[in-house]
Amino acid sequence: MPMHHSTTEQIPTVSDIFAARERIRQQIRETPVLSDPQFNAVLGCELWLKCENLQRTGAFKFRGANNALARLTEAGRAGDVATHSSGNHGAALALAAAAHQRRAWIVMPDNSVRTKIEAVQRYGGEIIFCPPAQQQRETGLANLVTKGCIPIPPYDHADIICGQGTAALELAEQCPELDLLLTPVGGGGLISGSAIAARALIPGIKVIGAEPEGAADTALSLQQGERVEEFPVDTIADGLRALVGVLNFEIIRTNVAQIITVSEAGIIDAMALVWRHFRMLIEPSSATVIAAIMAQPEFFAGQQVGAIISGGNLDLEQLPFKESLPYS
Amino acid sequence: MPMHHSTTEQIPTVSDIFAARERIRQQIRETPVLSDPQFNAVLGCELWLKCENLQRTGAFKFRGANNALARLTEAGRAGDVATHSSGNHGAALALAAAAHQRRAWIVMPDNSVRTKIEAVQRYGGEIIFCPPAQQQRETGLANLVTKGCIPIPPYDHADIICGQGTAALELAEQCPELDLLLTPVGGGGLISGSAIAARALIPGIKVIGAEPEGAADTALSLQQGERVEEFPVDTIADGLRALVGVLNFEIIRTNVAQIITVSEAGIIDAMALVWRHFRMLIEPSSATVIAAIMAQPEFFAGQQVGAIISGGNLDLEQLPFKESLPYS
Repeated sequence: MPMHHSTTEQIPTVSDIFAARERIRQQIRETPVLSDPQFNAVLGCELWLKCENLQRTGAFKFRGANNALARLTEAGRAGDVATHSSGNHGAALALAAAAHQRRAWIVMPDNSVRTKIEAVQRYGGEIIFCPPAQQQRETGLANLVTKGCIPIPPYDHADIICGQGTAALELAEQCPELDLLLTPVGGGGLISGSAIAARALIPGIKVIGAEPEGAADTALSLQQGERVEEFPVDTIADGLRALVGVLNFEIIRTNVAQIITVSEAGIIDAMALVWRHFRMLIEPSSATVIAAIMAQPEFFAGQQVGAIISGGNLDLEQLPFKESLPYS
Repeated sequence: MPMHHSTTEQIPTVSDIFAARERIRQQIRETPVLSDPQFNAVLGCELWLKCENLQRTGAFKFRGANNALARLTEAGRAGDVATHSSGNHGAALALAAAAHQRRAWIVMPDNSVRTKIEAVQRYGGEIIFCPPAQQQRETGLANLVTKGCIPIPPYDHADIICGQGTAALELAEQCPELDLLLTPVGGGGLISGSAIAARALIPGIKVIGAEPEGAADTALSLQQGERVEEFPVDTIADGLRALVGVLNFEIIRTNVAQIITVSEAGIIDAMALVWRHFRMLIEPSSATVIAAIMAQPEFFAGQQVGAIISGGNLDLEQLPFKESLPYS
């Protein structure tokens, strides 16, 4: 299970995603879809939130990690697993590994959200901290692989993509009338699996990505016609700081209609809006999808929009917004 | 629709609760039920959280308010409505009134949670602040009634009880194997409706109430064999500060197996535990049900327990707990 790919041979199909669902069904939670008339009125479209913040481990990542481990077990490969992650994939892998009687080693940037660090530990994962840079993360993982660990990539692999795609599979069944599907874009595991699933199940649906301006390597890659390999990352959306993966980018370029970039202020406003209307705290990465609608309301006006809320893991002591209090 | 009752004639049946569900179906959200293996392991029982924190207005109160207004409309009674409320019933009535083309006036204690005040205003309710005492709340409401408003009591009325009971109706269908049902106890609207619904649908189920030690008037009333009319209230659980209602107490004494009282520290620990395992912020009133299990684990050991998480409206700036961070 190499960390990088350069062929199109492994692009999964919706059948692979259905198979992933059967494989992980016992572990994952079918997450609820929430909608709210007042929220819709504010945003000007009919919005359906697929609440992966309420998934086990607090993020969609648990889907992909479970699928990857189930595939390892099917293939008869024993041994510890390892990855690098700012948190959600690490926590997901730690819990999935425990369920599969394996040990998980997680290379984490030392500026990771504390709630995410705590979750990895709670699920029994072994953390190895590193400086917050892609190169250091990869070196840390390479060391673990040298010692015999099996690497489980966070996004750039068909098994991960298929696992993440099961969220959109559920959503397409819960809301079969969608015009648009919106997901955040980080490494691209979620959006690539989602795009394959949604386009197979809902004819005519358009899949839109939301990316922070400060991590807009996917938007830039699409614009330049090839995947960029460097981007100066600066965003509060800690789950979206990775560069888009190779296989992910191949899927995105043919299956995603558009990437909308959003500002940091837009992300924070979106977090506050979701808290106000749904009493859910969603992490900044998730809020990008709502920020995208707030940034380009005319694009979404009157449409039936599914939005995958990717996770809810944040530090309560560092909430980036306060209630705005209109009363005196 | 008087605010107080002293007869048993109005004790509703499960048929009334089914009728309420049909009446409010278009307005309310069927809330999800969440369970988590790690959380169960910590608590020592199989727990199912009925997430009324994800109900519209962020609390179960929207069910009762909608049912009461639908009944008014059926009876041909036009006019503004009014209530006194520390927040959740007020917000619920404000939004329900808007849906029923009425104006709502809410008498609120001036120490109400700010998020709840803001919600009443956002839904178009008119707020009249009063000092935080039962007497002042009732006087404020009486003034509004004198001016022609129709009072909608927060809990002590069959229409409210039937509306609140629809949450347990859903839960009984979502989890038909429950041994125990746990709900918070404040004025008693939720637990009385829940007890009627659950006992009708799940033979042998026991209904347990959770009450803060600092607002344990219902436990004391049961112990004394009659409803106490005064209790020195002191609890963080702002939604449970009211005295149990007359009709509510009549239902509780014959349908509720036990009230478990919980400490303030227990409530706060329970809020933190739910955040850690579900990434949901629940209000202190809701956390009493988890605190009850933590306080008396032997009582719940190995049981299938349904717990109604009553609401999620709290001030983010005044969270009573911090993440405990076991890593160094």
